[in-house]
Amino acid sequence: MRQSMTLIPTLRELPSDAEIKSHQLLLRAGFIKQIASGVYSYLPLAKKALDNIEQIVREEMEKAGAAELLLPALQPAELWQDSGRWYTYGDELMRMHDRHDRSFALGPTHEEVITSIVSDGVPSYKRLPITLYQIQTKFRDEKRPRFGLLRGREFIMKDAYSFHTSEESLDDVYLKMYQAYTNIFTRCGLDFRAVLADSGAIGGKDTQEFMVLSEIGEDTIAYSDSSSYAANIEMAEVNCDYEKSAELEKELTKVDTPGQKTIAEVSDFLDVQASNIIKSLVMIVDEEPVMVLVRGDHELNDIKVKNALDADSVEFADEDHTKELLNCSFGSIGPVNLPSSLKIIADKAVESMMNAVCGANDDDCHYVNVVPGRDFQVETYADIRFIQEGDPSPDGKGTIRFARGIEVGHIFKLGTTYSEAMSAKYLDENGKSHPYIMGCYGIGVSRTLAAVAEQFNDENGLIWPTNIAPYDIHLIPVNMKDAAQEELAERLYNELKGHRFNVLLDDRNERPGVKFKDSDLIGMPVRVTVGKKAAEGIVEVKIRKTGEMQEVKVEQLLDVLTNIFKEL
Amino acid sequence: MRQSMTLIPTLRELPSDAEIKSHQLLLRAGFIKQIASGVYSYLPLAKKALDNIEQIVREEMEKAGAAELLLPALQPAELWQDSGRWYTYGDELMRMHDRHDRSFALGPTHEEVITSIVSDGVPSYKRLPITLYQIQTKFRDEKRPRFGLLRGREFIMKDAYSFHTSEESLDDVYLKMYQAYTNIFTRCGLDFRAVLADSGAIGGKDTQEFMVLSEIGEDTIAYSDSSSYAANIEMAEVNCDYEKSAELEKELTKVDTPGQKTIAEVSDFLDVQASNIIKSLVMIVDEEPVMVLVRGDHELNDIKVKNALDADSVEFADEDHTKELLNCSFGSIGPVNLPSSLKIIADKAVESMMNAVCGANDDDCHYVNVVPGRDFQVETYADIRFIQEGDPSPDGKGTIRFARGIEVGHIFKLGTTYSEAMSAKYLDENGKSHPYIMGCYGIGVSRTLAAVAEQFNDENGLIWPTNIAPYDIHLIPVNMKDAAQEELAERLYNELKGHRFNVLLDDRNERPGVKFKDSDLIGMPVRVTVGKKAAEGIVEVKIRKTGEMQEVKVEQLLDVLTNIFKEL
Repeated sequence: MRQSMTLIPTLRELPSDAEIKSHQLLLRAGFIKQIASGVYSYLPLAKKALDNIEQIVREEMEKAGAAELLLPALQPAELWQDSGRWYTYGDELMRMHDRHDRSFALGPTHEEVITSIVSDGVPSYKRLPITLYQIQTKFRDEKRPRFGLLRGREFIMKDAYSFHTSEESLDDVYLKMYQAYTNIFTRCGLDFRAVLADSGAIGGKDTQEFMVLSEIGEDTIAYSDSSSYAANIEMAEVNCDYEKSAELEKELTKVDTPGQKTIAEVSDFLDVQASNIIKSLVMIVDEEPVMVLVRGDHELNDIKVKNALDADSVEFADEDHTKELLNCSFGSIGPVNLPSSLKIIADKAVESMMNAVCGANDDDCHYVNVVPGRDFQVETYADIRFIQEGDPSPDGKGTIRFARGIEVGHIFKLGTTYSEAMSAKYLDENGKSHPYIMGCYGIGVSRTLAAVAEQFNDENGLIWPTNIAPYDIHLIPVNMKDAAQEELAERLYNELKGHRFNVLLDDRNERPGVKFKDSDLIGMPVRVTVGKKAAEGIVEVKIRKTGEMQEVKVEQLLDVLTNIFKEL
Repeated sequence: MRQSMTLIPTLRELPSDAEIKSHQLLLRAGFIKQIASGVYSYLPLAKKALDNIEQIVREEMEKAGAAELLLPALQPAELWQDSGRWYTYGDELMRMHDRHDRSFALGPTHEEVITSIVSDGVPSYKRLPITLYQIQTKFRDEKRPRFGLLRGREFIMKDAYSFHTSEESLDDVYLKMYQAYTNIFTRCGLDFRAVLADSGAIGGKDTQEFMVLSEIGEDTIAYSDSSSYAANIEMAEVNCDYEKSAELEKELTKVDTPGQKTIAEVSDFLDVQASNIIKSLVMIVDEEPVMVLVRGDHELNDIKVKNALDADSVEFADEDHTKELLNCSFGSIGPVNLPSSLKIIADKAVESMMNAVCGANDDDCHYVNVVPGRDFQVETYADIRFIQEGDPSPDGKGTIRFARGIEVGHIFKLGTTYSEAMSAKYLDENGKSHPYIMGCYGIGVSRTLAAVAEQFNDENGLIWPTNIAPYDIHLIPVNMKDAAQEELAERLYNELKGHRFNVLLDDRNERPGVKFKDSDLIGMPVRVTVGKKAAEGIVEVKIRKTGEMQEVKVEQLLDVLTNIFKEL
């Protein structure tokens, strides 16, 4: 493509409202343009990069056995009422009325539409399983759109849906999708992790998020430094062998700790490690109070408490309620000498504590030399704390590190949530009807573009991985008015295109400084400069990523470029 | 693709609400599925056919020098208020509010968005001209969606926009687009015409519609049987040499014609040809009455009257007004002995009439032997009638025929309509600002798919042209439980794919009758059947279009198929 014929409106100034690198650079490099809050135009360079991502997605979806279709953005309200999401999705669902005052949703996802299509079109077990996908513009009315393409209101997604007669079949496709997603993000050049996630309110089972590691990510991931283990920190199991101290038991003693309430205060005041203090809280579990204990250097994870007690609801008791139960304030709660009606759940780490410190249910007092099992009885020991950096990885391989991540993909075993709500059923070999067992699998395509931009840039601009780059080569005649330069550039443009390189030819009459600055900013992998040595048949090749430059004789250019792209 | 892994929900029954072939067949062959009135899902076969059309469009757009981008569907109301279309577009514009109660349009076209982008991004004449296009889902709230994909409310369009500093530059790109459109519809295999069209209210200049010839089309086209001339009948110029009769002038005579009012009645009663009767009407042109004459066998075109008189408005006088002016009713109007204040405009054909018949401005009477110029004076002779079948083509080549057409493309010189309304300006070499001169160029991509289906089918189903067909070859093992058949089919599936054929393998356990019926219905160009002679290495090749069948030895299959596709 000749640069004179396309639209790359680069900006010299930093856009004032763009907080993060990818947003700033995609704007400055003329890839995108905002039309409304969270709504962007993809200008020609972004369109080409999106095409490359979509092509990778299509190839991997095909390998995974999925067939492509295209569903409408306009979805009649009735379908969403059938699934119930019309009432639960809230303000994020964009809604409208047509000229006959019928209600429609602008699709944020397409479970309802695809379930209705498959329900009509695949009535029998004979045609199952089936996996269908689309790449499509979606709508979600985010409360606070931000970070450019990372959290927009109109965005491009790949969404896939699978339909099964058995859990095993769903497991099989889920695994294929896991592999496809791994391939896709690897081919995009991204540093990412597949992360165990919370299946949340939607009622499904297994679910994993694909997270691109980035400090601007909104989620915290716990991952192993020596294996593929990764999970959202809410989800990460703690799998520690807590060694019991060899210390001898000492006598339980009540000490004055006037005004000392927090773990840090007590630790300072009594000169003990936080890891030797028992943090005690009262929670209301399905309307019954329960005392919950974790080690002073650990954080309680209330989701784990809920799961460990198989409870429907858990919440923290307020200070009045606590006072009523224990006759003390928050900072002085402890498990010793409790009323027998108050059960105790404790994190596994507590079991190994020896001669520890805890609140005495008496303001301004603590116990020291507390021994679990001797001084109080625990109903349930369970994993109820957040994992921490330095913990062993739950899979037994390596040590846990934390990172922040941008969610670019999500695979999800839906089960029968939608098919039951919508009465979508197939007939088995005996003519009996069952709800389809379903999976769904999403990739944020435009978000992936932003994630790549976020991961690959330097102070001069973007640095596109070769698989995503809008063009392979940026070919720059320094001076378009120099006949030798122009002629050689035109010749190379045609020759390189003939060898299947995608070439952007900067045929603009601009100063060399402007051309080079723009070139670094838009970030094609390789720049070929046709300058003063054009008459001698010499050009300059620069690798954007490393900054490495070399002069190359024209007759060797193809070989040099082929080698560079082999290694990039 | 294995048929077991994709979704082709064929129907045996004719869908009750589908009136036309393409709509019926696309539904029955499992290409599309309606989700709401005028809103369709494109199932896997349709998606593949759309991809093929889009690929052709992209290649031709690239050749024409256009760069691809992707604009948002959500467009802030403010942009549409700037252009004025927010107020004039009416109910067909789909509108919505976001969670903050800001108004948006769902884009039916993108003149506003692209003008705003180019206005910001291309401030100088140096970067002009530029042509940008996208392929995108559009929304238009049709009052009566019908004919399936032909008139839907959510549809796929290619829309291109060009920006210029001069009319000559616009002319140049308009011509390039004309050529690109001709190439696109030719490559789609369509029988079409580029038709001169009315630029209508939008205020542009030249405009042509690309019409696929089809009896279900909503527009009538006048085209030459021996040249590329074609126009909407409203637009077609009449370019006849009317020969003056050699007959001698006879004496003007008033005759009684009791109760004879219409041309047919008078023609019968007086035994004269309709072509020798003058049809007379009174029109109100810019508030002044004018008498309008055409030959009795011709139809008046009021748009031509308006253009010929350079009028702002023309309408027919009602009977009361006519009576007041001429003291007679509609059927007796004539140009002889008029009040001098009443000017006459006549079609050119009238000038050559001799000894004709006309009304006598006296009920139940007509004049015979009327001679224009002798018996009445005409202020203006002009082309004011509709062209007719049998007329010479206005370009002097061949004879006019009529056809009905489906509009699939439209190219349009917009001029400065949008840029002026939106104050979108560039700076010229002297730093002076001017509104961009614009063109716009649309193709109904999903409509083109339907038009192809409408043109290519028979009583058994669809017959896809090779360039559009979802798959080249439908490979059918007759009995999947026969090991020899299954094995050979699998082998051929892989071999043919290896030779770049797109193959659909019917690996379903269905009866042969079902497989063959489905195969004819979905209409891939070539069917390869692996049947009883599989063990002998013989398969059957059938060409869908001609029904031609032949037995082919497996080792010759590739050559046979290659030759067939060369000729299809």
